[in-house]
Amino acid sequence: MTSESQPAPLPAGFRAAGVTAGLKASGTPDLALVVNDGPDHHAAAVFTTNRVEAAPVTWSRQVLVDGRVDAVVLNSGGANACTGAQGFLDTHRTAEHVAEALGLSAGDVVVCSTGLIGELLPMDKIFAGIDAAAAALSPAGLEPAAIAIKTTDTVHKVAAHAGDGWSVAGFAKGAGMLAPALATMLVVLTTDAVVDPGDLDTALRAATAVSFDRIDSDACMSTNDTVVVLASGASGVEVGAGELTEALTAVSAGLARQLIADAEGAAHDIAIEVRSAASVDDALEVARAVARNNLFKCAVFGNDPNWGRVLAAVGTTRAAFDAAGLDVTMNGVQVCRAGGVGEDRSLVDLTGREVHVVVDLHAGSEAATIWTNDLTHDYVHENSAYST
Amino acid sequence: MTSESQPAPLPAGFRAAGVTAGLKASGTPDLALVVNDGPDHHAAAVFTTNRVEAAPVTWSRQVLVDGRVDAVVLNSGGANACTGAQGFLDTHRTAEHVAEALGLSAGDVVVCSTGLIGELLPMDKIFAGIDAAAAALSPAGLEPAAIAIKTTDTVHKVAAHAGDGWSVAGFAKGAGMLAPALATMLVVLTTDAVVDPGDLDTALRAATAVSFDRIDSDACMSTNDTVVVLASGASGVEVGAGELTEALTAVSAGLARQLIADAEGAAHDIAIEVRSAASVDDALEVARAVARNNLFKCAVFGNDPNWGRVLAAVGTTRAAFDAAGLDVTMNGVQVCRAGGVGEDRSLVDLTGREVHVVVDLHAGSEAATIWTNDLTHDYVHENSAYST
Repeated sequence: MTSESQPAPLPAGFRAAGVTAGLKASGTPDLALVVNDGPDHHAAAVFTTNRVEAAPVTWSRQVLVDGRVDAVVLNSGGANACTGAQGFLDTHRTAEHVAEALGLSAGDVVVCSTGLIGELLPMDKIFAGIDAAAAALSPAGLEPAAIAIKTTDTVHKVAAHAGDGWSVAGFAKGAGMLAPALATMLVVLTTDAVVDPGDLDTALRAATAVSFDRIDSDACMSTNDTVVVLASGASGVEVGAGELTEALTAVSAGLARQLIADAEGAAHDIAIEVRSAASVDDALEVARAVARNNLFKCAVFGNDPNWGRVLAAVGTTRAAFDAAGLDVTMNGVQVCRAGGVGEDRSLVDLTGREVHVVVDLHAGSEAATIWTNDLTHDYVHENSAYST
Repeated sequence: MTSESQPAPLPAGFRAAGVTAGLKASGTPDLALVVNDGPDHHAAAVFTTNRVEAAPVTWSRQVLVDGRVDAVVLNSGGANACTGAQGFLDTHRTAEHVAEALGLSAGDVVVCSTGLIGELLPMDKIFAGIDAAAAALSPAGLEPAAIAIKTTDTVHKVAAHAGDGWSVAGFAKGAGMLAPALATMLVVLTTDAVVDPGDLDTALRAATAVSFDRIDSDACMSTNDTVVVLASGASGVEVGAGELTEALTAVSAGLARQLIADAEGAAHDIAIEVRSAASVDDALEVARAVARNNLFKCAVFGNDPNWGRVLAAVGTTRAAFDAAGLDVTMNGVQVCRAGGVGEDRSLVDLTGREVHVVVDLHAGSEAATIWTNDLTHDYVHENSAYST
């Protein structure tokens, strides 16, 4: 995986750019463009499951129907959600403008937006930004594109994976999970592998299921979440389903971990690992219940190993377990044994950034981990002052 | 309804007391006792639905099986939850001690505890506190009892309802709903009406369903929530099911409103009213989704009418609605019309304590309201420093 300080290369067949269109009051870059020059134009995507979906999501779902995507245009500074017929028209016009600038079909252009809900985009700035981005397209454009889609992100997020003669690279913004998600999560993955379109879709779903779907910063689902993968085939290297899934999963996991590490106002990254569950679904339900418990999240912020709040959260689920058999370990200290008091809670050190909570259900042999964050003053501050 | 500044009388046939047993480091009162001297000893109760339930809940469920309760003993300063066999034994010994002090059967003594999970209670202090409370029992004991069960409550909560020759009075602590609940909600209701035991149970369930079950401060369910009602029959006035339900509902609603108004760190009390729903369940699901959305709750704290977060929350539910038909009104301003931009959001004034959000689903004729709070710095502060 490439760290953010080392510029990640785009796979062969791709160009990208990030420019300042003037959508954000801050004057920082806010429009990104990614183009797949082929020879293949295979694509797959997953979107938010929020029933109130933004215009660009509605548009992009249609673009993906035939599995071909030539370009992705993304903007920060406005979500174009809850903007009615005009909002959808604006998304359509955005795709048309990209198509004209690049000589493509608008029906092959995915559109992603992120920012405040309920405001129309300034289309003159969008159009000028697209023109500027089209002129700036470059094989070195991954990082500029990643920078241009930041909203409350403090750092941009890129990740890459090198295969034998082929590669995957991607970038992301936001902090949360695909469904639900904190703010909007947008992710673009690119690969120059020669792949079967069906394999690409399957691999993307498998990769997101164990990466973006297993981070849950604040349980809030966005109207705009999108993860799209583009395959150019430009490496000439044929890659099978297994290898492709492995690569997409590695890059997705890397980006997901970066999203959690940069979640709004977070002071701790918390892994909730549920072991000995009767099913993976049970493990996920329990892990998510703990990850969404505000009292537990506040306690971690206060470096307080308040394991009672973990048990209280577990108790709200329908998972198979006996309350008198639950074990909880926090950063290596088994603070709860058989549903009761275990080792001295004062032995738990929560001062580091990473916190590892293990809940043992003693009900089976399945396991799963959800990554989340603590609930902090900075989270409240950022989210009480976002639109004003 | 009696305000907290006017001492509320206990109905005939009841005595109560609140004393300092030394369970709380603060040295404030922490043990309460309520005794029903009859002639009737009818009782009904509802408990947390958390599967990790505290020892006093397990005990009290058994006490209620025969519908007779002679006394309720309550302590703050410790939840006696996740305390294993020793914790249950301690609850049993608490009931035994009350029974001995008052000449009752332990099997007719309800026990309620609230405070930190995962620590055993100091039983010597509990026993001494019970002795002191038994000696202090008085018809004027409602307020001392209410004061003694406070944890993070800044004020004690009492409410009363006067019938024709009979009355209901009750007290509560905590801030949240029965399931789920913030911290622990404990409520004791008393009436001197002559009632049918079956009516009492039905009336309590009806009353809690539209009061405590419709407040949701922070979506966290306690291990200890208990609402118990005792009927002494000492007024000699027979009261039918309808009148009883009305009275219990009035007192429960009054206490529920006080709980929300004193929720941990809250700066706003928010009513989420969902109209034109296909069913009451749909209305409740939508209202609760909004009430639990941290982003929305932070926005209200910041006096920011961020209606996009309301729609994003509505979109996560399975309720019947068309996203293009949703209306949202905040404090009288219709900021969202037909799923899109309505009146100017800057017209909304959120500086007052009460906030009224109306979501119109345009899907039927049912409605429901959930009361919640905003998410504030003080909430994070209180809950990050609770056990340490």
